Amino acid sequence: MESFILYVISDSAGETANKLIHAAMAQYPNVQMEIEHFPFIRTEGLLLDILRKAKQENAMVVHTLVIDDLSLIVNQFCEEQQLFCFDMLNPVVREIQRRTGEIPTKKAGAMHQLNDNYFHRISAIEFAVKYDDGKNPKGFLEADIVLLGVSRTSKTPLSMFLANKNLKVANLPLVPEAHIPDELWKVDPTKIVGLMNSPEVLNTIRRERMISYGLNPDTAYSDMTRIHEELDSAKALYDKIGCLVIDVSRKSIEETAAIILSSMNLSDRSYEN
Amino acid sequence: MESFILYVISDSAGETANKLIHAAMAQYPNVQMEIEHFPFIRTEGLLLDILRKAKQENAMVVHTLVIDDLSLIVNQFCEEQQLFCFDMLNPVVREIQRRTGEIPTKKAGAMHQLNDNYFHRISAIEFAVKYDDGKNPKGFLEADIVLLGVSRTSKTPLSMFLANKNLKVANLPLVPEAHIPDELWKVDPTKIVGLMNSPEVLNTIRRERMISYGLNPDTAYSDMTRIHEELDSAKALYDKIGCLVIDVSRKSIEETAAIILSSMNLSDRSYEN
Repeated sequence: MESFILYVISDSAGETANKLIHAAMAQYPNVQMEIEHFPFIRTEGLLLDILRKAKQENAMVVHTLVIDDLSLIVNQFCEEQQLFCFDMLNPVVREIQRRTGEIPTKKAGAMHQLNDNYFHRISAIEFAVKYDDGKNPKGFLEADIVLLGVSRTSKTPLSMFLANKNLKVANLPLVPEAHIPDELWKVDPTKIVGLMNSPEVLNTIRRERMISYGLNPDTAYSDMTRIHEELDSAKALYDKIGCLVIDVSRKSIEETAAIILSSMNLSDRSYEN
Repeated sequence: MESFILYVISDSAGETANKLIHAAMAQYPNVQMEIEHFPFIRTEGLLLDILRKAKQENAMVVHTLVIDDLSLIVNQFCEEQQLFCFDMLNPVVREIQRRTGEIPTKKAGAMHQLNDNYFHRISAIEFAVKYDDGKNPKGFLEADIVLLGVSRTSKTPLSMFLANKNLKVANLPLVPEAHIPDELWKVDPTKIVGLMNSPEVLNTIRRERMISYGLNPDTAYSDMTRIHEELDSAKALYDKIGCLVIDVSRKSIEETAAIILSSMNLSDRSYEN
């Protein structure tokens, strides 16, 4: 009998494997795989217990073990027992070794070292929270990226997502009536992104938001004339600034973020050691 | 000559491959690989241009292409040209197909579909920003997780990280003098996490924070007696609540988050379709 159980084994938090499983499962919207996580597995005894259980359940095994002995154990066990096994990390790690001649640290959790880069990322997240929603325009001058957009153009989640890549992001909600803070005009326009959305999408989202608040959905906030007015006024501002404009209506935050990085020639700074 | 260039090719935003590269590079703190990102590659012509350039530069190729023709092209090209190639996604995708008999959608960017789960995640991030730093104790009653901790115990980044997993998180900073909001006593203690840190780490972090603000580092904020007082008072509160307590002093947010999820028997909800 084929089993629909997937074991994710890692000697660290297991985030890399999580991402892979998430991407693989997205290909099967109708399949319910049972996913069992085994993070922080760093001893042979514990690993063997998990593998024996995997064998009993005929589970698929995906791992990101970097500790040499442990990854060998999994790969051998699965081969002998004819259990599906995918070693996510070692093929790439070994190829880098071959090319550079460097010895990998083989240190579990190396990605999560509390180094300068890590603390910069923490600061970037705190920066994004602090300067979210135009809370303090002083943030614009320190930011790597300033996001502008009318209500419901995903400014906040986009800011947090980019912050996780070690970028300092501030955002400003646009309302036609509101005064644009002077600081915005002092920012290099190449650092600014204007977010647009389609009027229909905004109308739907805003109506749902009103309903979720237990309020009448047919308010000025969701009114189409008003939405057009807001978008026109935003577009006029973007033209005046001369900044990059992105329509987020059919894009996820991951996709919008990838466009921003490539347009601004910025890289994911969470890599740097 | 061996080249230190790595090409990351994806038909979507490339986040899964990014995570892998990040984990692999963490094994080589002294190596500077040049990483080139090619997100949203969905046509054969564009893909072949990239592969030819990869060949010229003898680059390592890592890809997460799910579109059948495209992943075949890469795998064949790299085999013929003896270029290192790692197909991150298809081995697992194919094994799920074999086990379930389901046909994968082969839709690029399936992970970033704007479905209910996606919008829940966006709400969770907005929730975390709204209820960060004890801004509104009403959030405690709606939250999946309530984080407590003295200043500099990574409450904010941890909240954002968990929010990305589709969990509603509120946090409250603890100061011995402050009144604990009544709402906290109405929360199920199994939903509460008390964060601790070592006095030495807190002292170092807080001194640095004062210096970065251009202030005298030897203030009450970084004073060891004061820090002990804060931690003792926090610990007394955690005991009174009877909640999970985690010392974050040598843990990254990823590690702390993994401990919280497994202790609370919560799963990463960003998977669900």
